[in-house]
Amino acid sequence: MAVIESPLSEDVQKVTGEALQGAVVDLIDLSLIGKQVHWTLVGRNFRSIHLQLDDVVATAREYQDTAAERAAAIGVLPDGRAGTVQASGIPQPPVEWVHADDAIRYFVDVFTLIVARMRDRIEATEDDEVTQDLIIEITGALEKHHWMWQAEAAQN
Amino acid sequence: MAVIESPLSEDVQKVTGEALQGAVVDLIDLSLIGKQVHWTLVGRNFRSIHLQLDDVVATAREYQDTAAERAAAIGVLPDGRAGTVQASGIPQPPVEWVHADDAIRYFVDVFTLIVARMRDRIEATEDDEVTQDLIIEITGALEKHHWMWQAEAAQN
Amino acid sequence: MAVIESPLSEDVQKVTGEALQGAVVDLIDLSLIGKQVHWTLVGRNFRSIHLQLDDVVATAREYQDTAAERAAAIGVLPDGRAGTVQASGIPQPPVEWVHADDAIRYFVDVFTLIVARMRDRIEATEDDEVTQDLIIEITGALEKHHWMWQAEAAQN
Amino acid sequence: MAVIESPLSEDVQKVTGEALQGAVVDLIDLSLIGKQVHWTLVGRNFRSIHLQLDDVVATAREYQDTAAERAAAIGVLPDGRAGTVQASGIPQPPVEWVHADDAIRYFVDVFTLIVARMRDRIEATEDDEVTQDLIIEITGALEKHHWMWQAEAAQN
Amino acid sequence: MAVIESPLSEDVQKVTGEALQGAVVDLIDLSLIGKQVHWTLVGRNFRSIHLQLDDVVATAREYQDTAAERAAAIGVLPDGRAGTVQASGIPQPPVEWVHADDAIRYFVDVFTLIVARMRDRIEATEDDEVTQDLIIEITGALEKHHWMWQAEAAQN
Amino acid sequence: MAVIESPLSEDVQKVTGEALQGAVVDLIDLSLIGKQVHWTLVGRNFRSIHLQLDDVVATAREYQDTAAERAAAIGVLPDGRAGTVQASGIPQPPVEWVHADDAIRYFVDVFTLIVARMRDRIEATEDDEVTQDLIIEITGALEKHHWMWQAEAAQN
Amino acid sequence: MAVIESPLSEDVQKVTGEALQGAVVDLIDLSLIGKQVHWTLVGRNFRSIHLQLDDVVATAREYQDTAAERAAAIGVLPDGRAGTVQASGIPQPPVEWVHADDAIRYFVDVFTLIVARMRDRIEATEDDEVTQDLIIEITGALEKHHWMWQAEAAQN
Amino acid sequence: MAVIESPLSEDVQKVTGEALQGAVVDLIDLSLIGKQVHWTLVGRNFRSIHLQLDDVVATAREYQDTAAERAAAIGVLPDGRAGTVQASGIPQPPVEWVHADDAIRYFVDVFTLIVARMRDRIEATEDDEVTQDLIIEITGALEKHHWMWQAEAAQN
Amino acid sequence: MAVIESPLSEDVQKVTGEALQGAVVDLIDLSLIGKQVHWTLVGRNFRSIHLQLDDVVATAREYQDTAAERAAAIGVLPDGRAGTVQASGIPQPPVEWVHADDAIRYFVDVFTLIVARMRDRIEATEDDEVTQDLIIEITGALEKHHWMWQAEAAQN
Amino acid sequence: MAVIESPLSEDVQKVTGEALQGAVVDLIDLSLIGKQVHWTLVGRNFRSIHLQLDDVVATAREYQDTAAERAAAIGVLPDGRAGTVQASGIPQPPVEWVHADDAIRYFVDVFTLIVARMRDRIEATEDDEVTQDLIIEITGALEKHHWMWQAEAAQN
Amino acid sequence: MAVIESPLSEDVQKVTGEALQGAVVDLIDLSLIGKQVHWTLVGRNFRSIHLQLDDVVATAREYQDTAAERAAAIGVLPDGRAGTVQASGIPQPPVEWVHADDAIRYFVDVFTLIVARMRDRIEATEDDEVTQDLIIEITGALEKHHWMWQAEAAQN
Amino acid sequence: MAVIESPLSEDVQKVTGEALQGAVVDLIDLSLIGKQVHWTLVGRNFRSIHLQLDDVVATAREYQDTAAERAAAIGVLPDGRAGTVQASGIPQPPVEWVHADDAIRYFVDVFTLIVARMRDRIEATEDDEVTQDLIIEITGALEKHHWMWQAEAAQN
Repeated sequence: MAVIESPLSEDVQKVTGEALQGAVVDLIDLSLIGKQVHWTLVGRNFRSIHLQLDDVVATAREYQDTAAERAAAIGVLPDGRAGTVQASGIPQPPVEWVHADDAIRYFVDVFTLIVARMRDRIEATEDDEVTQDLIIEITGALEKHHWMWQAEAAQN
Repeated sequence: MAVIESPLSEDVQKVTGEALQGAVVDLIDLSLIGKQVHWTLVGRNFRSIHLQLDDVVATAREYQDTAAERAAAIGVLPDGRAGTVQASGIPQPPVEWVHADDAIRYFVDVFTLIVARMRDRIEATEDDEVTQDLIIEITGALEKHHWMWQAEAAQN
Repeated sequence: MAVIESPLSEDVQKVTGEALQGAVVDLIDLSLIGKQVHWTLVGRNFRSIHLQLDDVVATAREYQDTAAERAAAIGVLPDGRAGTVQASGIPQPPVEWVHADDAIRYFVDVFTLIVARMRDRIEATEDDEVTQDLIIEITGALEKHHWMWQAEAAQN
Repeated sequence: MAVIESPLSEDVQKVTGEALQGAVVDLIDLSLIGKQVHWTLVGRNFRSIHLQLDDVVATAREYQDTAAERAAAIGVLPDGRAGTVQASGIPQPPVEWVHADDAIRYFVDVFTLIVARMRDRIEATEDDEVTQDLIIEITGALEKHHWMWQAEAAQN
Repeated sequence: MAVIESPLSEDVQKVTGEALQGAVVDLIDLSLIGKQVHWTLVGRNFRSIHLQLDDVVATAREYQDTAAERAAAIGVLPDGRAGTVQASGIPQPPVEWVHADDAIRYFVDVFTLIVARMRDRIEATEDDEVTQDLIIEITGALEKHHWMWQAEAAQN
Repeated sequence: MAVIESPLSEDVQKVTGEALQGAVVDLIDLSLIGKQVHWTLVGRNFRSIHLQLDDVVATAREYQDTAAERAAAIGVLPDGRAGTVQASGIPQPPVEWVHADDAIRYFVDVFTLIVARMRDRIEATEDDEVTQDLIIEITGALEKHHWMWQAEAAQN
Repeated sequence: MAVIESPLSEDVQKVTGEALQGAVVDLIDLSLIGKQVHWTLVGRNFRSIHLQLDDVVATAREYQDTAAERAAAIGVLPDGRAGTVQASGIPQPPVEWVHADDAIRYFVDVFTLIVARMRDRIEATEDDEVTQDLIIEITGALEKHHWMWQAEAAQN
Repeated sequence: MAVIESPLSEDVQKVTGEALQGAVVDLIDLSLIGKQVHWTLVGRNFRSIHLQLDDVVATAREYQDTAAERAAAIGVLPDGRAGTVQASGIPQPPVEWVHADDAIRYFVDVFTLIVARMRDRIEATEDDEVTQDLIIEITGALEKHHWMWQAEAAQN
Repeated sequence: MAVIESPLSEDVQKVTGEALQGAVVDLIDLSLIGKQVHWTLVGRNFRSIHLQLDDVVATAREYQDTAAERAAAIGVLPDGRAGTVQASGIPQPPVEWVHADDAIRYFVDVFTLIVARMRDRIEATEDDEVTQDLIIEITGALEKHHWMWQAEAAQN
Repeated sequence: MAVIESPLSEDVQKVTGEALQGAVVDLIDLSLIGKQVHWTLVGRNFRSIHLQLDDVVATAREYQDTAAERAAAIGVLPDGRAGTVQASGIPQPPVEWVHADDAIRYFVDVFTLIVARMRDRIEATEDDEVTQDLIIEITGALEKHHWMWQAEAAQN
Repeated sequence: MAVIESPLSEDVQKVTGEALQGAVVDLIDLSLIGKQVHWTLVGRNFRSIHLQLDDVVATAREYQDTAAERAAAIGVLPDGRAGTVQASGIPQPPVEWVHADDAIRYFVDVFTLIVARMRDRIEATEDDEVTQDLIIEITGALEKHHWMWQAEAAQN
Repeated sequence: MAVIESPLSEDVQKVTGEALQGAVVDLIDLSLIGKQVHWTLVGRNFRSIHLQLDDVVATAREYQDTAAERAAAIGVLPDGRAGTVQASGIPQPPVEWVHADDAIRYFVDVFTLIVARMRDRIEATEDDEVTQDLIIEITGALEKHHWMWQAEAAQN
């Protein structure tokens, strides 16, 4: 007997659970690389980007918790351990002093990747409106960050 | 090449962008006429309506910002300049001292108009769930204001 | 002529109104039985469950107000009187000192029942996206509480 | 052996417990009918009465908790379930749009009834000063609300 | 030798001191009659006017303190005792239940009187810019209250 | 017919009303003379006494409002106008720069007088427990201030 | 001549002073043993009891100050020194790691003892209503804590 | 008869009213174009300018309300409707992605224009010190913003 | 070409700039000597004067920033470096333990000097109302501090 | 087997534990005598010293908790019971009305004693840097209080 | 040439940098496994442990940021990427529903390991007092958590 | 006899006092030059550096107070007067409009100088652990600022 009884059928639970697990991993990795560049950043725009990265980390931390708790609420075990996160497929920043311009270009690419995955997850969760609603909300928040990084990447 | 790369196809971007632009204009005009009557109101219920109009303005300002930033996030330029807003098609209040009863009837009509437009926009944005979700939230908030103005318009 | 003009067609208004009325009754009863056990609880886990029940009551009170005001906003009269609530069909706790273990098992069952009803209401409200969005949000919050009671019910 | 040992003699405990149980039921019903009219109110004074009813509900909720916890503290089980509350004997509002004037008259009557009962409870609890002190405080708060409804009922 | 050495010449100190003393008396009396009607008010608009009067009292109390401390700062003794205040020349409210309409008309008149006096004090203090600046600020605040009472006095 | 219906018999209402009216007058006068000396104080302990007087004024303002609203709640008209307050019988401070030591002695005497009157009012209100409870609370607060002034008056 | 003049007769002052001194000692000792077990607690319910003990300490510290200042206000010297407190007669916890179950049983007994003493003090202070009112309030707060410890002591 | 009685003579009222109406229009337009560029900004300094524009909007909104309410307080009807605002004469930003450097130069020019107009209004309002004082305060705030935009426009 | 374009003519800019520069230097030096005596104070009134000096420092720091930013806003470079401040002409406190009485007398003299200079600056800035308004506000704040030090200097 | 496993060797644990136990006792006693004199103080500086003693008590309570929890964290049982505290060796204040001057001299001596002991404990804990760091922080806070009492004790 | 110039010699920088890098990895992994068990926990103590784990995560996140920024400040690049963290050597929790008792035992072991490593890092950083001070503070915080988990692991 | 008795031997007091006096002077000068450039800054990064300089000033002001009060606490007179500060040896900024790039390079150099001095003071204060702990904390905070300025100085 399941420890946590799911309000969903087995099939829907499986598909929804995979979408949530994917989101958890992406959001944890986003919080780790956000902090990584927060620490190694250099260059003229240092302070502004340094602070903006803390906004990214705050978004990522808030939603990784919401997504993982939603997984538990439908009887699916989330996995947010480092060993799992390191296989996220998100390109990693180097362990070097990162110049502001490079950081901006890097995060434009990271968000392009994660937003595309999240949009697939919106489709995948159409049989559980509660989870879908949450994925939609997360996607909206990530696309807003994406816009800001792109706005900064525009040639002055 | 677009400055802000859209997560949407060109067609969906166009339709969604028009819906958001319409919402931005309606909400800015609502904030302007809300303040206008806030300043020119007179009559027995002055204080109560005076405060209620600031609630309307707060709602309108919060969502005009959210809607316009969503437009930017999907690569569409919002236009919230006075020259654009003055073509909103929303009936304008006179520049006279406005009695409370007239103000109530006026805002019942204004909300009837804007709510109908927002409901059309819910339909129009069905291909971008993120934007649709936002339009639904705005509509719910406007319908709540609509109810309150109607409740006040009832004959005592 | 209706006092509050509905933004919905008559048919949709009727179905949506019934879903909201059902939610209002369930949520009021949940707040009453939550307080009842908050007061009569005994046993080793007293303090922890005592506080958790206040979280349940806070959720139930917040959403009963939102749901009832949404009913009014679509021109439907909500009914939250004790005589109506006592026919909710939710099993009632005894007027006895309730041990923590019994309280946990009781609330697992209560949430199983209410969540199932709320999921039916998500289906029933598909023709008014604004209301459906609200029901989805409420369901998500109730399923999160459900998970927590189940987690506590697991045999140690 | 009693689960909660009473600091009072058996006789005093019984009389005091009945007074507290009566107060709990009255205050829960007051919070329910306060919300009911909060939702169904219409008319010129809508906003002002709408807000005032939330003040009534806040008072009723705060003191129902205090009174029920005092009952538990003297070893008496409070009963705040819907089935018990619906027998409170307090006249119920109709499920109709309620005009502001009718709402005012209705709550003047409701408070006349509850205040009279609370004054009897002050007498009944004279052998437990701690409970009596609490009943006095509740009565003072209810009489202040009573005054305000009466002040509003005066012919302009 | 003066206890508090004035930064002003004797003549300017005398004229400025009289203006401040007049303001102190008017503002204390305004706070007393504001509270008086706050307590004896009745009628349909009770709650709204009841709260508005506390705004008046807050303004009056804040500025009586500022004005009196300014008097002390220029070496002039303020006098805010009841015996002095009762000779303010401001018409007093009756000790009766005051209907909302009468209260509104009464405060329109009171503010007409006090605003006129304050405008004279602006002229009178032109030789001490620091005090004049304070009187101007007080006048602006009082004229804003005046507008609101007049707006409410307009026939609906 | 009375505008505000009293929950008390006519006799009790009369006696209780007089006690409350006396308290209102004493507390308003206390707030006025507290401010008066706050402004005219001089000497080594200036800052400490200056701040302590604002504590006195805060206490006096809070309780004059509570007492006057209680009077209204039992159908008695409070009178807090300057003309009434100036007959309080409380000795008035001079309009002179007041030295700290004189201020301390003066307030010891003022509190001796007011506390004695309040104790009489506890006796006088024994037939309305709600009012009595309020008078007791006010007396306790005033006696605490009294102790502090006496402690300061002790010869160093 | 007394440094602090008592508002009470000599007899009443003596009896009331003894009651307050007893309360001060009990409450200081309660705050010390509450902290002691807060530090030495072990076992499954550690965190929950650890936090609950800080609630006990907060109650005890707040009321020891109120009671001691009330003593001073009636001209009686409170004595809260360690040498006096150690003779309180309240059983002391051992200097050992205390298991949660033992802690619960221990505090049930401690509160049984202190509550009984406080009830005697209510009787003893009947000639000074201000002090009696304070003792009643403290007793109510302690009886609420007592109920919670008993609720936790119930066999699950 | 005027609805709102002016404390000013007819001539002064007319001149003062025109100055305030001009300020209202300029400040509303400033809030609209501030938001417009807040949404369409791109380039390296995006985040810093994005935030700074919200400071500009906050200043503009606060003072448009103060200026319009001052107009009402002297019996002059303010006009803040979109149709009126679009004739402000302030150059409008394009509906394009705006680069940070262009935004900075644009706002330097906008502030040069508005500050010059406000300085004319200081002269024009010299017969109503209360209004003049308000215009001076607004001018000071706008000149501070002007300095900051100029500082940013300096060649690095 | 000037980096920061002045809204003032060259003559007015020069005179106004000198007044602001003088104010900046006086206020920085006031903040330094305020802290100096805050640290070296001794004697019976230690705590009270110690705290009061932090109020002086807070005032001085707030206005030195406002005055210097106003200078920049009119295109004048403020100079607040230690080498400039040490030529302020304000008498310096000794590096010794300073007794409370000496501190009081010292600050009475310091404020007499600075207030006189600020009054001259009010005259000097009459051609730029914005700056003059700021200088007036600073003067008022300093004269209030001056009064308090004088009040404390009065012989007890 | 130890309930709480120490991160320290047995020798270091013993020495460190004794230092922490000594600090706990000193700080509890300091909080008790601080309150004792807070209650029995009289004289001209009453309010200032009364408040300063609450600062002392706050410091003492914060660090007694930190020190005792550190003891538990290294596996040592702290003992903060009244019977243990009364043997602290710190001279006790009399149960008399204490004049401000005597209080100041008394606390200068108390702090001289406790600071000396704390400095010994810094030496004693050099083999556990974590505890030593805590003792150093406590000593710094106590020496700051010591300075203030000495400053007040200086002859004016 | 180094981008960030170190205040330390090359040798000290190397050793200190390794200690900080180790701390960063341990603290990130602690935050990940803390969240992991926060999500998969079940059993009687669910709520209490669920909350306690968020305290652990908060501590771990705060100090990983402080430690990494300290590394950057001494010119050493921290590495907090998932691939690096997964080699931390800290035993990982299973992806299963974790019972409360197992969670407690697990975290006792995790803290035993991390505390031992941190104590080595205190030794290793003795040549940079600033870093050592930070490591000592982190160790103290972790040892406090360690105590709490051990206290909960004690057999009841 | 010393006014403030030192807890240190004469030798240690002298050396420690010199270190603290040096820190006080450096930190006051840092706060003055931080403000100076805050006011005269120009260029593309204006707003970001303008805000960062206020962070520097906040750090400098907090620690100058802590260091000076520590000096007083060990019986040493701090000297923070302008005449003393202007001999700090820290290079001064010009009284010119300062471009952002120059400001960044300037503060990198200033922090290099001050950090080196603070590291010497850590060595110098090793015989008073309390002061040394404070100097270490200040150094850590300054080195964090140093890193940020260096990061910004890196070529993009």
